[in-house]
Amino acid sequence: MSNNNNQNNASKKSQEAVTPKSEDISRWYTDVVLKAKMADYSPVKGCMVIRPYGYSIWENIQKILDTEFKRLGHTNAYFPLLIPESFFTKEAEHVEGFAPEVAWVTHGGGEELEEKLAIRPTSETIIGYMFAKWIDSYRDLPVKINQWANVMRWEKVTRPFLRTTEFLWQEGHTAHRTHEEAKEEVMTMLKVYQDFVEHDLAIPLVTGEKSQKEKFAGALNTYTIEALMPDGQALQSGTSHDLGQNFANAFDVQFLDSDGTHKHVWSTSWGISTRIIGALIMVHGDDKGLRLPPRVAPIQAVVIPIVNKTGADAINAKARELAKRLADAGLRVECDDRDGYRPGWKYSEYEMKGVPLRVEIGAKDMEKNQVCLVRRDTGEKMFIPEAEMEATAKRLMEEIQQGLFKQAKEILDTKTFRANSFEEFVDVIKVKHGMADLCWCGDQACEDRFKAEVGATIRCLNNREIDGNCVCCGKPAKHRVFVARSY
Amino acid sequence: MSNNNNQNNASKKSQEAVTPKSEDISRWYTDVVLKAKMADYSPVKGCMVIRPYGYSIWENIQKILDTEFKRLGHTNAYFPLLIPESFFTKEAEHVEGFAPEVAWVTHGGGEELEEKLAIRPTSETIIGYMFAKWIDSYRDLPVKINQWANVMRWEKVTRPFLRTTEFLWQEGHTAHRTHEEAKEEVMTMLKVYQDFVEHDLAIPLVTGEKSQKEKFAGALNTYTIEALMPDGQALQSGTSHDLGQNFANAFDVQFLDSDGTHKHVWSTSWGISTRIIGALIMVHGDDKGLRLPPRVAPIQAVVIPIVNKTGADAINAKARELAKRLADAGLRVECDDRDGYRPGWKYSEYEMKGVPLRVEIGAKDMEKNQVCLVRRDTGEKMFIPEAEMEATAKRLMEEIQQGLFKQAKEILDTKTFRANSFEEFVDVIKVKHGMADLCWCGDQACEDRFKAEVGATIRCLNNREIDGNCVCCGKPAKHRVFVARSY
Repeated sequence: MSNNNNQNNASKKSQEAVTPKSEDISRWYTDVVLKAKMADYSPVKGCMVIRPYGYSIWENIQKILDTEFKRLGHTNAYFPLLIPESFFTKEAEHVEGFAPEVAWVTHGGGEELEEKLAIRPTSETIIGYMFAKWIDSYRDLPVKINQWANVMRWEKVTRPFLRTTEFLWQEGHTAHRTHEEAKEEVMTMLKVYQDFVEHDLAIPLVTGEKSQKEKFAGALNTYTIEALMPDGQALQSGTSHDLGQNFANAFDVQFLDSDGTHKHVWSTSWGISTRIIGALIMVHGDDKGLRLPPRVAPIQAVVIPIVNKTGADAINAKARELAKRLADAGLRVECDDRDGYRPGWKYSEYEMKGVPLRVEIGAKDMEKNQVCLVRRDTGEKMFIPEAEMEATAKRLMEEIQQGLFKQAKEILDTKTFRANSFEEFVDVIKVKHGMADLCWCGDQACEDRFKAEVGATIRCLNNREIDGNCVCCGKPAKHRVFVARSY
Repeated sequence: MSNNNNQNNASKKSQEAVTPKSEDISRWYTDVVLKAKMADYSPVKGCMVIRPYGYSIWENIQKILDTEFKRLGHTNAYFPLLIPESFFTKEAEHVEGFAPEVAWVTHGGGEELEEKLAIRPTSETIIGYMFAKWIDSYRDLPVKINQWANVMRWEKVTRPFLRTTEFLWQEGHTAHRTHEEAKEEVMTMLKVYQDFVEHDLAIPLVTGEKSQKEKFAGALNTYTIEALMPDGQALQSGTSHDLGQNFANAFDVQFLDSDGTHKHVWSTSWGISTRIIGALIMVHGDDKGLRLPPRVAPIQAVVIPIVNKTGADAINAKARELAKRLADAGLRVECDDRDGYRPGWKYSEYEMKGVPLRVEIGAKDMEKNQVCLVRRDTGEKMFIPEAEMEATAKRLMEEIQQGLFKQAKEILDTKTFRANSFEEFVDVIKVKHGMADLCWCGDQACEDRFKAEVGATIRCLNNREIDGNCVCCGKPAKHRVFVARSY
């Protein structure tokens, strides 16, 4: 059982109702983030504080991903926060894409700097520079490095987790002998992200290649996982980039191949960030607050004693015993036996925090050797023999995990609409508030029109059959794509 | 077994001898850091790259400390990297102490900022501001938060790990109802640091209160753990601060106490950084490279097959089997069965990396059902029955851990000298290159003279008996203190 002093000290404020999700999802989101103590606004414009409850979700995410990265042969390292201005200008597309978002350090140690330094918006440039120092021979390849770090991209409009000027992420950077091997890495890591988000976060995705307009600045191709929020807006939730030899050329990362010639490496990068926690809140939450998938929930079950004036000690002791048994069974558990808070108040509190399972124990339950289990996802209430508690709780963890995914999948499916004409496309975005699946000629002019007319962008190419002409210009289609508004 | 591609691809360079430690410890240190691939210089002045091998030591450090912090009821959170200038000026001593070292962000998103923002040198101010938002009642206390983060302090002279402009650390921040409780937290965390550094890093320490001159800018009192390097210079290795109500006053962090009155909280902060890895290298390393204590060594044992032209497959297979058995026994193991590198070359490589135990297996050993174990700390070579390998390896981990501590303790003891006069003090610092244990009157004038005459500072007060007058002015002594030069 973790001891989260700060989290448990609920102020009365958190008991006020949140704005209903169906009424105003934007206000609902902010209410839940603040009342569940996931994050708070900071005095620095665009930057948030990740509070302990939100941060422990990030820690669970880190544990799962880090284990998988290492299993696949990556090692962690740490590169400087600050990047010289001259580094950005070495890769033309990269500087064009990132320069407008950069925060600049101009003074340090009481003096003006000779060259201003960017707070990293991403680290391809400085890592490219180091790779050039480290790589000599084909024997040094592949190099597979990951970094857990903070990055900064200046944003005009921000929202906790979903879009913040500073955010936490991991960025993987690899260098390979051949393009083929690099491309394999790109797709492997895309699949790692997809499996993690669908399996552990219970968020269904569409995945695929980005259009050239939407790709990472400096990449040959970007692949993305995209989640659909209940309001029909897509959220780019992780990306994997085929950087080709662009950064290898810019930073002269060469190796001596076995044929005796010098060649430039092929590189990749891939990242997922605290933004995904925004998706987690958006996709699963309801009018009572968060609903967290058990695999990443900081508290998987909470035991709450139902205490009257008499017999409180025995019931509290029983509650602590049940919590210990659940912890021994491998669950992350808390027992809330605090005085001065009614059980109903506590129920609301842990519902707000999205704790998957509530265990209630009162005098009558003790008499009957039973406990009451309440699922957060469905609200279902079950009285079960005390002896079956651990087994039932473990089974329910799996059922809740699956249940959340299933519900979210239904939203994704019912919000994705085939659009066979531009009118249908506009209807999907503006009236149905969904994501359009349509045929596209591949020209940026048509892509620009998606944006200009309804503010939608191509989220990714999909692999479905091209069975019509471009909905925009009527010319033969090259791709079938998902188009939606996005966060 | 971890798959550290990047680490294992040793270039021939790393086989060159390092500068002997006794000859020039400063060059020796740099040689070892680079050749063991712990860290590398970056293109950003004063900032280093922590390479995978160095970073995995940091990960081991994080795991041990994070577990202990949580066991004691702390939770992790994340606060913004950037701190508004106005925040620093709220605590007068704090701004005076840190302003000269700050890096300033003046431009973001293509515009000049209205207020410049500091890259955090430490986070008391912004966390104080948030505590004021979060704390209402005595029921909200204590708040016990920790943050793993990067910080930046502009430095003129830098060395990898020991002194870098950017470094990684953890900073704990707590708020309490009473000064007594805060002081208990300060001492608890100092003890956590001491136990960790002595037990896990095998570095013996002296610990105690800092002088008022040397305390943290803004604290009432600072407590420190100090390690002594083989050249007689001390290294401040972790600090725990009693902040009193200084930051609570500056940021108006109040709570409603049970007596119905509003009071300011009492706060603490404490931190340990990647600097400690510098101490680890300095204290234990020898002319062959690193010597890592098993508890934090990324690789605890390496298995190296001794392969001739014939029978290579069988020996390599045996080596992999031995490695697997050691891994199953709970050790962090690698098997280096690469072609194209002689066994002797590999021995040097893993000696440089400080791997505590080497397991050699050749054709003769296989015939005799034995393995050869070689200790990194002593060089001792043992032939033991193969069946006893795991048990022996596990026992040796403990012996090597103890052995390294014992050696380092001898250095600390033989380098610490009692000084009964100013002349003896000067002799200790300048001739004996050690740390002086002396009586001091408590006046800053005398403290300043330690610095002015031989560049030494009071590292900490100690609890030994005051049995003389101040070595400097001859007045009655108030404290007995350790004085040394420092990194």
